[in-house]
Amino acid sequence: MIFSELIVNSFWQSPFLATTNEAENAPIVLAGVLLSLVVIYLASKIGGELSRVIDLPPVLGELLGGVLVGASALHLVVFTESGAAAADSAIISVLQLINNISPEAVTEIFHSQSEIISVLAELGVIILLFEIGLESDLKELTKVGYQATVVACVGVAVPFAAGTAGLLFLFHAPLIPAIFAGAALTATSIGITSKVLSELGQLKSREGQIIVGAAVIDDILGIIVLAVVASLAKTGEVDILNVIYLIVSATVFLVGSILLGKYFNQSFVVIADKLQTRGNLIIPALIFAFLMAFLANAIHLEAILGAFAAGLVLDETDKRKELDEQVKPIADILVPVFFVAVGAKVDLGVLNPLVPGNREGLIIATFLIVVAIIGKVVTGWSVFGQAKINRLAVGVGMIPRGEVGLVFAGIGAASGTLDKPLQAAIIIMVILTTFLAPPLLRFAFKQPPAEKQSLEEANVS
Amino acid sequence: MIFSELIVNSFWQSPFLATTNEAENAPIVLAGVLLSLVVIYLASKIGGELSRVIDLPPVLGELLGGVLVGASALHLVVFTESGAAAADSAIISVLQLINNISPEAVTEIFHSQSEIISVLAELGVIILLFEIGLESDLKELTKVGYQATVVACVGVAVPFAAGTAGLLFLFHAPLIPAIFAGAALTATSIGITSKVLSELGQLKSREGQIIVGAAVIDDILGIIVLAVVASLAKTGEVDILNVIYLIVSATVFLVGSILLGKYFNQSFVVIADKLQTRGNLIIPALIFAFLMAFLANAIHLEAILGAFAAGLVLDETDKRKELDEQVKPIADILVPVFFVAVGAKVDLGVLNPLVPGNREGLIIATFLIVVAIIGKVVTGWSVFGQAKINRLAVGVGMIPRGEVGLVFAGIGAASGTLDKPLQAAIIIMVILTTFLAPPLLRFAFKQPPAEKQSLEEANVS
Repeated sequence: MIFSELIVNSFWQSPFLATTNEAENAPIVLAGVLLSLVVIYLASKIGGELSRVIDLPPVLGELLGGVLVGASALHLVVFTESGAAAADSAIISVLQLINNISPEAVTEIFHSQSEIISVLAELGVIILLFEIGLESDLKELTKVGYQATVVACVGVAVPFAAGTAGLLFLFHAPLIPAIFAGAALTATSIGITSKVLSELGQLKSREGQIIVGAAVIDDILGIIVLAVVASLAKTGEVDILNVIYLIVSATVFLVGSILLGKYFNQSFVVIADKLQTRGNLIIPALIFAFLMAFLANAIHLEAILGAFAAGLVLDETDKRKELDEQVKPIADILVPVFFVAVGAKVDLGVLNPLVPGNREGLIIATFLIVVAIIGKVVTGWSVFGQAKINRLAVGVGMIPRGEVGLVFAGIGAASGTLDKPLQAAIIIMVILTTFLAPPLLRFAFKQPPAEKQSLEEANVS
Repeated sequence: MIFSELIVNSFWQSPFLATTNEAENAPIVLAGVLLSLVVIYLASKIGGELSRVIDLPPVLGELLGGVLVGASALHLVVFTESGAAAADSAIISVLQLINNISPEAVTEIFHSQSEIISVLAELGVIILLFEIGLESDLKELTKVGYQATVVACVGVAVPFAAGTAGLLFLFHAPLIPAIFAGAALTATSIGITSKVLSELGQLKSREGQIIVGAAVIDDILGIIVLAVVASLAKTGEVDILNVIYLIVSATVFLVGSILLGKYFNQSFVVIADKLQTRGNLIIPALIFAFLMAFLANAIHLEAILGAFAAGLVLDETDKRKELDEQVKPIADILVPVFFVAVGAKVDLGVLNPLVPGNREGLIIATFLIVVAIIGKVVTGWSVFGQAKINRLAVGVGMIPRGEVGLVFAGIGAASGTLDKPLQAAIIIMVILTTFLAPPLLRFAFKQPPAEKQSLEEANVS
């Protein structure tokens, strides 16, 4: 076939063979990305709409849509980073039917396509957190700052202590793996919890702002815990300098961006008003958001924290409503890529009790899930000074784990600290807390706040 | 440094080393993409605004902004496919300052980042053509269909014949390279010309619709010419079957999508009205656009033609205005990536007459540019049956070459058909026609249409 060699969309080719191959592959990679996006959008819309029909948050449907098209079922959206090969991808098979691709090229194309969809998903969660920042209210968030900090600390300490102790004494796990698995129970997934809150219209409620604030602090604590336990697992001791570096840089970053907000606000409005070409508002906003995300990433925090801080800062400007409207369609097309990818990366195979190798993991997982849920639900009752607060909702809002938990499982596996059953148990815990959180949160917000109890506690604290 | 190994945003890692590396690199690749986007957005806004101040189409400024940050000057946005190595990229140097990256990882990270920005640029031009399709009017376009076809055919035939003949007789080039270089003069860049038209508010004018229609047909003709000359260069004869396949598939695709439009319109509105979750309009629209882009790519046309056809079809629905508004911010953030990337990939080094090796190429380039401009400007006078048409504007609108011309240069170089000077001459021709078109088009539309002359010609035809 002459055409796969001929029709090259990309710019120019150098005479070197490797570069020529890349340029030849470019239109096939593009075709793979386009087809993946079509599948992802179909899965997200079908899942989201069905979820809405049965009165659950649409994001649950998007996650399940991802499971359907992903590694567990249809194998349309699979990723090299989860260990898939080109032969596992149904989309690559379609591309092979259409084009005449050499075996090495197939691997390269699959790798590129998988990486591009992963980065689009990352950009999706960055835009999501930017939008959540825009929808949040910095003043309201500072008002609940202390409560959020307490919720975050309790929500890190309780599951960590209970998980580690249980693994040590009930399951007789060795100390370091027990600490590692306990640590994997700590970090809440901001992306999932804030999306559900937004869909329930509860993002701006006092509960919603406490949950978002706590999830942000919790995420930073999770990163610090990860640094501690990973250096513990690697060298047997804690790298104190790194821990101090992380704590200082996280604090400087958060406080710095809030202070920056007060001054940058005005300059931003002045700049946006002066620009007159298309994108005069959204492009400066994204420059700021992406720069903050980059900085957060550079100081070894997460990119999404930077995007959230950028959203919070720009929320304080007069341009906020206009910006909200322009970010919406961008979020609409990028955020589903993130949720479908989360679902697609899950391999439900680990849940099958008929596979003997899964059973030990399933038993430990049951324990971890109980600790993961109870350890976060109790945090609701650590909120002080707030009358009429829906404590159950606050606790339930902290349940979904997500990416940080999986990173623990991954690093634990790579370093040899976690054995197979413990690693599988962590993955199952992350899957179930993620999928249970949307319906539970829907339920919790239907409960009226326990007024009397709150008032009594408020008097005590 | 323990951190570059620890802080992993991506999902989970398999125990295999390669996969672990990939997961470890993921946050650094993301950082590179974020920083590249910040640079691209800054370049596009600064360039675009300065261009507007001196009353030129902003897209020219975006292209020049790209030149500034690209391979010609600052080396911030460079691409492996243009032959750059990791060491050439200033952004990679920044990432190396922040993270401790091994030499192999640097190459991989640069490769990934470059490929991701390229695909984002491709998605940008796909969204641009979708938007141009939405802004175009299918009825108006069918009305000028014959004129557009004539303009396209004249605009392919004249530069091809004049270019090949001139190279043969003035420069004594061998036959096949002369044909190859002549063919590189044929295809107009739809992306650049339609963006300029849109910025001048002339997209919906009769001239604008003729130019867009002609550019689409011209692009298809360019692909067919490319297939012919490439097989001629490779085997010495023309692969008739492939040429017939291309002509048939292009015709079926274009006619098919117009017919489909009549029926799919209604179903699309019904579906969008039934959906109630976020993105109920934009996601089905993008599913359609990306699917059409994929199909066009699959039958070896260009993806942008599919996106343009999808836009034309959806333009006929009641949802059109709402859709227009939602596509706008998406285009605002993706389209600049395309134009800045086009500028960034240009290496102005080939224009330096002080380098002796450049001189022969520059002399041939001068000839090619004259043929490229005159060969397209004359097409305006081939428009028949249209009174009061601005013939100069139609001809000038066809001037910008762009990607297809560069693909010719690339394939010619890779197959050994084109020697260095001829290859450089084609690249210079593409650069100059691309950069000259926006100001020339601005000028041409300021001229009043030559009424009397047009009327006389209209009577004749």
